[in-house]
Amino acid sequence: MDEKIKFMREALKRAKKGLSQGEVPVGAVIVYEGKVIASGYNRRTKTQMATSHAEMYAIDRACRKLKSWRLCDCDLYVTLEPCPMCMGAMLNARIRNLYFGAYEQKGRSMTAELAASNLLNHTLEAEGGILEEECSAILSGFFKTMRSASKEK
Amino acid sequence: MDEKIKFMREALKRAKKGLSQGEVPVGAVIVYEGKVIASGYNRRTKTQMATSHAEMYAIDRACRKLKSWRLCDCDLYVTLEPCPMCMGAMLNARIRNLYFGAYEQKGRSMTAELAASNLLNHTLEAEGGILEEECSAILSGFFKTMRSASKEK
Repeated sequence: MDEKIKFMREALKRAKKGLSQGEVPVGAVIVYEGKVIASGYNRRTKTQMATSHAEMYAIDRACRKLKSWRLCDCDLYVTLEPCPMCMGAMLNARIRNLYFGAYEQKGRSMTAELAASNLLNHTLEAEGGILEEECSAILSGFFKTMRSASKEK
Repeated sequence: MDEKIKFMREALKRAKKGLSQGEVPVGAVIVYEGKVIASGYNRRTKTQMATSHAEMYAIDRACRKLKSWRLCDCDLYVTLEPCPMCMGAMLNARIRNLYFGAYEQKGRSMTAELAASNLLNHTLEAEGGILEEECSAILSGFFKTMRSASKEK
């Protein structure tokens, strides 16, 4: 199996964990030397923290694991195109490659601009659309259920 | 005293706390209803975490205090122009106004682009140069000391 598909499936597993807890289902994993070394899923509803995104948990855990703020040889897989906060954290952590699944709605991300910005003398390779259909479906399913539930109220 | 000056002095106090611990001296406070409700300072050297920026600690603490990821009526003061991660976190938290002290080197921030991006249907008012001289001096002093120390080695 293609490695990108394999690791995006791992990110999807984390998104499903979030879904089971009533969170917007977004999951992320960080891969180093061919292995998942850290993961996370969106927990904003539970924590009520603006920074509780899947990628942030994964980055913090990878830094702890490697005992370094530099994650130079690490790749990050996330089921949804990252927001600027998470893109900025990836640049700060010197993440090598970013692979994401679903694309965000137009105008809600600045992925390309930030990836190529050469801020901190670091550019990030970004590729979207990995397992796009599954990554989108889990999100649209969640929002559909939320809309039905709010109509019933 | 001008309120912006008053709160930037509070941010500077946090930067000095970081300095005393050997960190790059950057400090931040969040103001709500005329009072400092949360603060933070850069701790990246100690924690070895890519996300250990002053603004992130302040945002996390303010969310905990107000028990909400929405910091709509809050203003953030930080001694140095924010990186994209911290700008993104402010957008995610719906921070109202950003006031910063020193300007970052050209090309290391995207403050204006992100503030006006209307991502998440939220724009942020950003104003730089508050107590600029003091905020710059503490940083340049730190880097000068670091350079001298590394020459002596």
